Amino acid sequence: MELFYAHKIADGRAFLDSEESAHLVKVLRHKAGDSISVIDGSGALMSCVLEEVSPREAVARIDSVSEGWGAHPYHLQMAVCPTKNIDRYEWFVEKAVELGVDEIVPVVCDHSERRVVRTDRLGRIAISAAKQSLKAAVPVIPDVVPLKDFLASCTCGLRLIAYCAEDVKERVSIAEVLHRASASGLNPARISILIGPEGDFSPEEVRAALDAGFMPVHLGPSRLRTETAALTAVEAVYLSRACGGPAYDSSNLQHLNH
Amino acid sequence: MELFYAHKIADGRAFLDSEESAHLVKVLRHKAGDSISVIDGSGALMSCVLEEVSPREAVARIDSVSEGWGAHPYHLQMAVCPTKNIDRYEWFVEKAVELGVDEIVPVVCDHSERRVVRTDRLGRIAISAAKQSLKAAVPVIPDVVPLKDFLASCTCGLRLIAYCAEDVKERVSIAEVLHRASASGLNPARISILIGPEGDFSPEEVRAALDAGFMPVHLGPSRLRTETAALTAVEAVYLSRACGGPAYDSSNLQHLNH
Repeated sequence: MELFYAHKIADGRAFLDSEESAHLVKVLRHKAGDSISVIDGSGALMSCVLEEVSPREAVARIDSVSEGWGAHPYHLQMAVCPTKNIDRYEWFVEKAVELGVDEIVPVVCDHSERRVVRTDRLGRIAISAAKQSLKAAVPVIPDVVPLKDFLASCTCGLRLIAYCAEDVKERVSIAEVLHRASASGLNPARISILIGPEGDFSPEEVRAALDAGFMPVHLGPSRLRTETAALTAVEAVYLSRACGGPAYDSSNLQHLNH
Repeated sequence: MELFYAHKIADGRAFLDSEESAHLVKVLRHKAGDSISVIDGSGALMSCVLEEVSPREAVARIDSVSEGWGAHPYHLQMAVCPTKNIDRYEWFVEKAVELGVDEIVPVVCDHSERRVVRTDRLGRIAISAAKQSLKAAVPVIPDVVPLKDFLASCTCGLRLIAYCAEDVKERVSIAEVLHRASASGLNPARISILIGPEGDFSPEEVRAALDAGFMPVHLGPSRLRTETAALTAVEAVYLSRACGGPAYDSSNLQHLNH
């Protein structure tokens, strides 16, 4: 199954940009009247019929819409400091989308070695990964934000932070936090996880995050790079919340090997 | 903390190759008499004192040895078909080492698009990741092996396979398999997980693996690339077996942010 990304929806029609259109027309040789599957990043899968097949802008009529297609059963915001080597951050974006993430916020911290990120490029990587992994929702990737502003704006019900500095705070695993949340009946729908830069958060930043209601978690005994720590957090939520127990319905299995 | 990799141990001394020696001498400006920490990939951390500091071959006297340094509490063999784009496989090697893996076997399958892998290069990536993540053991990465030969040679007590094809086999998550193994008291020390190529295993290969005692597992509802599927399997073992419950001892926390 191949998905196309529409940059605009209007008048019951999906409009593909020049890159998508060129791929559709020149590589896949689609013609007017062909059926295609389109996403616009909002979470809906649109079954369409091609009307215009210009390689600059293809237009398809929307025949039916499936909401929540390829969705995961939680809302996950990852607030992750950009890595010095941007390839590592881009890799994180791709993998997080494959597994399931709703928002990726590049947060700038005291020890950040990178303070500028081309979020348009990250957005394109996210669209590509969503198409690849058959997800109709593309995560939101806002512009870089200072940690202070992020802490003030975060409204997720469950807020977690992973940091290196040893302190007296009890730390539990993300799986344990999610388990306790379920067991207590207080199970916030929206989860935010904050991951610091290569040089860790400063003590003041950790204090500010804890004051803002972020709960310290651990990611196990391994010493992980920033992007590996971030992905491990995404995996912990995915494996706890989407990967379920033995009664898993294998008819939903789309995973693996593309 | 900085680790150096010794390519040879003899007469109570660690010998560094030209690349490690040049870094030690020219970049870090170490001198004879300096204390350094050395690994040779076998799992031991060696506290050494530099005797010779030639940029072509530095030699250090081993003063003490800590076995099992940075080790994880399981033995994990990942048998993963090489990806068409080798960058993706190299990325998997780096991330798997950060989390904890003991052997990475490049397996060639019916649908493999890549049948040749420079395992010397993968080995260097594994050494670099082990130094970075402060692990004294570097995983073994043998030469490419046909699936049939791999199946005949695998001796791990717990053998798992993830594949796409839908069949009637019940599939459970890796976490559930590990949980059942613990609960039953039959808890094999050595785990092997088999991950197929971009085009999945052929039906004959799946049958052969099941006949060889591999148990089908699922990796959740997301459609994952080969390298993401492989890493998700490593994460599932790591999060289940090393990331423990709430009583986790935070004094062991080395994770995150380097």
